[in-house]
Amino acid sequence: MRANLRYLFNPESVAIIGASAHKGKIGYELLNNIITFGYQGKIYPVNVRASEIDSILGLEPFESLGDIPGPVDLALITIPAQYVADAMRECARKKVKACVVITSGFSETENIKGEQELVEIADSGSMILLGPNVFGVVYTPVNLNASFGPTHLLPGKIAFITQSGALGISLMDWTIAERIGLSSVVSVGNKADIDDDDLLEYFAQDTNTKAIAIYMEGIKEGRRFMDLAEKIVLQKPLIVIKSGRSQRGAKAAASHTGSLAGVDTVFTSAFKQVGILRAKTSREAFDWARIFHLEMPEGDNVVIITNGGGAGVMATDEAEENNLHLLDDYSYLEDVFKECVPPFGSTRNPIDLTGQTGEEGYKVALRAAMKEGRIHSVVVIYCEAPLTDPSRVAAFIIEEVEAQESRKPVVVAFIGGSRSQEAINMLNEHGIPTYPEPERAMDALGAFYRWVHFIEAEKKEAPPEKLSLPLKEIEPIISTARKEQRLQLLESEAKQILRLAGFDVPAFWMGSTKEECVRAAQRIGFPVVMKIVSEDIIHKTEVGGVRVGISSVDEVREAYTDIMTRARKKYPDANVRGIIVCDMVEKGVETILGMSSDPQFGPVVMFGLGGIYVEVLKDVSFRVAPLSRRDAQEMLQEIRATPLLYGVRGGEKKDIASLEEAIYRLGLLAAGIPEIAEMDINPLMVLDKQKGCKVVDARMTLQPRED
Amino acid sequence: MRANLRYLFNPESVAIIGASAHKGKIGYELLNNIITFGYQGKIYPVNVRASEIDSILGLEPFESLGDIPGPVDLALITIPAQYVADAMRECARKKVKACVVITSGFSETENIKGEQELVEIADSGSMILLGPNVFGVVYTPVNLNASFGPTHLLPGKIAFITQSGALGISLMDWTIAERIGLSSVVSVGNKADIDDDDLLEYFAQDTNTKAIAIYMEGIKEGRRFMDLAEKIVLQKPLIVIKSGRSQRGAKAAASHTGSLAGVDTVFTSAFKQVGILRAKTSREAFDWARIFHLEMPEGDNVVIITNGGGAGVMATDEAEENNLHLLDDYSYLEDVFKECVPPFGSTRNPIDLTGQTGEEGYKVALRAAMKEGRIHSVVVIYCEAPLTDPSRVAAFIIEEVEAQESRKPVVVAFIGGSRSQEAINMLNEHGIPTYPEPERAMDALGAFYRWVHFIEAEKKEAPPEKLSLPLKEIEPIISTARKEQRLQLLESEAKQILRLAGFDVPAFWMGSTKEECVRAAQRIGFPVVMKIVSEDIIHKTEVGGVRVGISSVDEVREAYTDIMTRARKKYPDANVRGIIVCDMVEKGVETILGMSSDPQFGPVVMFGLGGIYVEVLKDVSFRVAPLSRRDAQEMLQEIRATPLLYGVRGGEKKDIASLEEAIYRLGLLAAGIPEIAEMDINPLMVLDKQKGCKVVDARMTLQPRED
Repeated sequence: MRANLRYLFNPESVAIIGASAHKGKIGYELLNNIITFGYQGKIYPVNVRASEIDSILGLEPFESLGDIPGPVDLALITIPAQYVADAMRECARKKVKACVVITSGFSETENIKGEQELVEIADSGSMILLGPNVFGVVYTPVNLNASFGPTHLLPGKIAFITQSGALGISLMDWTIAERIGLSSVVSVGNKADIDDDDLLEYFAQDTNTKAIAIYMEGIKEGRRFMDLAEKIVLQKPLIVIKSGRSQRGAKAAASHTGSLAGVDTVFTSAFKQVGILRAKTSREAFDWARIFHLEMPEGDNVVIITNGGGAGVMATDEAEENNLHLLDDYSYLEDVFKECVPPFGSTRNPIDLTGQTGEEGYKVALRAAMKEGRIHSVVVIYCEAPLTDPSRVAAFIIEEVEAQESRKPVVVAFIGGSRSQEAINMLNEHGIPTYPEPERAMDALGAFYRWVHFIEAEKKEAPPEKLSLPLKEIEPIISTARKEQRLQLLESEAKQILRLAGFDVPAFWMGSTKEECVRAAQRIGFPVVMKIVSEDIIHKTEVGGVRVGISSVDEVREAYTDIMTRARKKYPDANVRGIIVCDMVEKGVETILGMSSDPQFGPVVMFGLGGIYVEVLKDVSFRVAPLSRRDAQEMLQEIRATPLLYGVRGGEKKDIASLEEAIYRLGLLAAGIPEIAEMDINPLMVLDKQKGCKVVDARMTLQPRED
Repeated sequence: MRANLRYLFNPESVAIIGASAHKGKIGYELLNNIITFGYQGKIYPVNVRASEIDSILGLEPFESLGDIPGPVDLALITIPAQYVADAMRECARKKVKACVVITSGFSETENIKGEQELVEIADSGSMILLGPNVFGVVYTPVNLNASFGPTHLLPGKIAFITQSGALGISLMDWTIAERIGLSSVVSVGNKADIDDDDLLEYFAQDTNTKAIAIYMEGIKEGRRFMDLAEKIVLQKPLIVIKSGRSQRGAKAAASHTGSLAGVDTVFTSAFKQVGILRAKTSREAFDWARIFHLEMPEGDNVVIITNGGGAGVMATDEAEENNLHLLDDYSYLEDVFKECVPPFGSTRNPIDLTGQTGEEGYKVALRAAMKEGRIHSVVVIYCEAPLTDPSRVAAFIIEEVEAQESRKPVVVAFIGGSRSQEAINMLNEHGIPTYPEPERAMDALGAFYRWVHFIEAEKKEAPPEKLSLPLKEIEPIISTARKEQRLQLLESEAKQILRLAGFDVPAFWMGSTKEECVRAAQRIGFPVVMKIVSEDIIHKTEVGGVRVGISSVDEVREAYTDIMTRARKKYPDANVRGIIVCDMVEKGVETILGMSSDPQFGPVVMFGLGGIYVEVLKDVSFRVAPLSRRDAQEMLQEIRATPLLYGVRGGEKKDIASLEEAIYRLGLLAAGIPEIAEMDINPLMVLDKQKGCKVVDARMTLQPRED
């Protein structure tokens, strides 16, 4: 964790540089929030015209930081941009630990130099810097509201990090109305120094935080973020609202913050890979976040209790969409719930108490569900009706939940008007996640289980192996290309690297004369394939540079002449290296394994079936390298054409294990040799079970040299 | 429209049979709602013990309907189930026009006979019957709240029909809290007489209703509903929440109401086909419904005005998902908005006024957007901030919207806390659809445009043609099969029918001897295909019953012997009719055109590409027959493999027009001959442009005879 970071959240003293006595000024609102929200440390207003002012909000103002008698841990700076650097120098002299620069007008308005200056001052003073261009920081466990957002936030267990100021502040207001408790809010602004990663590290170890939600428009070092996230997710859920999902939205995000928004599918894959829960909207993020202070369920069996059949049906739809498992042992359910349900109701989960149930019906049914060990989570749905009182239903739910010995998750939805809204608030204030729509309750429970299942799978998984790449043997191949100023490796070079990395590459031999090719073919054994090798000829098939099914020495000679003639005719100036003679691979399912470099995440691995599947149907799966064995398995299952590998339409089942191994190895290779910018194994022929999968053709491109 | 239906909504007098003086009884709540909501007609409480009661809620009670002096238009019945029939007989004697049976305990509890009795009494008395098992009916234009739901509904332009009681009542409460105005609420319950179709016909002509929302779990006559919906949608939008989307949800719906829930994909296709907007949740349905009192936009250009860059990005994402067109003529936008936007904001739509904008910034920007003819719809997004007042922003928006001459749609989202909620309510009360999340605003505008675009497309479309099927020639083919007690038609019969229906079926000839086959082949011309014909052999290929590429008389003879030998060996008892000799179709893209019978919707047409595309990738599109030419076009575009028909990977573009024609014809054939239960044209070979598409193989199955 970054040194001094704790002073951002838990300072013993705070100075507000630019504190103001004028309501409506940021320097006023900030100070007012700190005082009113009940911060117990020392508070020092600083104002250049302190000598003219008696007091600001009842406190004695100081003309400069130097005038403050005691030490200052945290300085909040809200003075015009041109004075910020000087103020920070003063902070450094005062040995301030953390600066929050509220002021805007830095890199977001192209003032890159000004921002760089602030970073340098912070560095040389061993201070951390949040901002510039932020609305502040809130940490409720010590009643610190050092923001110019709303004053009276509800304390709770959710830490919220936001890249957007206006949205962040309005969401703070919203959390109050929705009774969502927060442990912290941090506005990261331009992220000149402190960024999401630093904050994640802090919240990971913060016992006052049980879930972390981030609003993010872009990310700088995707893989670093993933590595950090992966560790955190095992301890607490991480929910990310990544906007800029659409092409146009990504553009809007880029123009808004200068973030490089990145390809959205890669974000989705990357988040999934490390167990980050990606929310589509901020509402969804908080719907999820508020469920995570509950204890983890001990199993997957969910039971829904409702007084409205229709609401039950809708909740059931949503359960299936969220892969929730509704307990369906009907005779067991009947045993458990028959006492609670009238004859025209249903015990078949949803447990339908019917519209004629009174408030007490909920109490009885919930108690029954609570004491049953086979029921692991309960969803209570209430439809408001004039003849029942929502607050009484709520009171019964609270009573039963608080009385239970096991801490199984209970989530609630109340559909109705203002009386229901009051009951919803009451339930939320008692820590029972309650929503105004059954779909939202199911969706939140779904997110909870996704997180739980991720952790379970992660725990089962073997730690990632280190593939010991024979770098000493690979390096010369790359050097050769570099020396020849090529970025494109020859097929033989690419195949050589893949073989060194443990791929099954069928025998191949480069021949530069007709007789060399004959000898190569004889050594390999017929039938063989012959392909032209030239860095200048990319599309070999189009120039007639590929011949398959060659089964005799005579055919080799004929093919050699034919290929060379055609190539020279079409590309008279091409540097033809010769012809590669390869063992001919038997027919299997053609797949494509690819790798490319993403600006945010670095090497990304792609998998799909050959031909139209990738090109036309876009039926592909992505993961950021290196990937785990589970990632490789998931990639294989994610595409729609997967059944073709399992032998549909009379085909044999293919060698899935070997394909997973190949995907996994490509991830390790991609991460292990950063010099490779792109790779394509196309096709990787997947043979029948036990027969492996073979590299038929391969291409590699190196990263351009930066020098 | 059903006779007497208007008395359900606009009666001059209402009797409450089972009126009660005891608060908490349904007979009390019902009467109380009618009185309190301000109904101006005559109100007659009826109670068997009227002689013992002075007054009920200030009104004189009657012992029986017969005692009432004047006529009674509408009778609400809420007495125990066993007395309902007698009460209805009394209604008939009194010449009541419409009965609403609130009482439950009929078909929903297996009391089918009791329900049937009510229908018969209604019929013989020329009365209409709503229910049984309903919570009542509300029609706000005449202040009639004849329900036991909440009392003070907000008047508005949305009619809401609900199949679920508890959910319906709770949603009524919810509409009050959300400031959603309703023209009507109808609980349809068991639909013994009045059903959704009747109500749709009423609301279609009701000038007080601008949008119709239905909560539906099942449907009886799908095609009838579609035909009606199609007409209504041209006048007003129809929003359907069809629950039971998931398999498990469909089961829950079935057990809840006894509705046959049906295959969900067919519902989706059917709704799309006739322009019904399908909402996933009730919240979404009302989010959409409340936008439709706005005037239709004059074009597709949408502009977003916001003070939060992040909120703007999220709205942009949602715009793309909803196929909304954000105006992107940046120099034009700069001209229009440069005055409103500070230098660090953006005019590039979203128009970002930045967090530093005051309330008046919205006024200026909205006014600019309002007066520009090239801007057709405006979305205003406000993020609450402590230094601005949401209600002032709302006031400015109301002012500008009300001042505008054109009535272009303006939708609004306010993100924030209780102050924002008040402003949202204020805007909604002024008829400006306002939401607490930008995504919901975009989603509602998206639904608006989907409806507008549907109507535009529908208006452009030519009226459906009547395919004059040569029924006289088709009938004997079906009769033959019926006589032979076959449901499965022979290939030759199926092809004959398709040819009569105008499909391009290549020459074929049935031969029952070797020499007949030879003559057939000579007549057709080589190469030919030979296939065994037997109603007992379905999978012809598996028994070696198909030979392709036969190019000489000798080969015909050899193939004949071979096919017959194999078939007899495998199926010694099969009734072999002979061998069909067919012209061999050149290679094209293999597609599958299918038809099956859906229990709710009747004949449904399916289209997909042959082989793995349908079987493995489930890449198919459905429509309910008969379909329009536009449906056929849309089906073709809906599948993911569509690019294969347009000639990817070096292929020629295929004959799309002819394929559309074939899909269209199949729809007409399916609807025109209800005796056919299933059809499969597999493959329908689609040849290059101008070359048509040809029926290579076909199967048809007849409906089982009911006698």
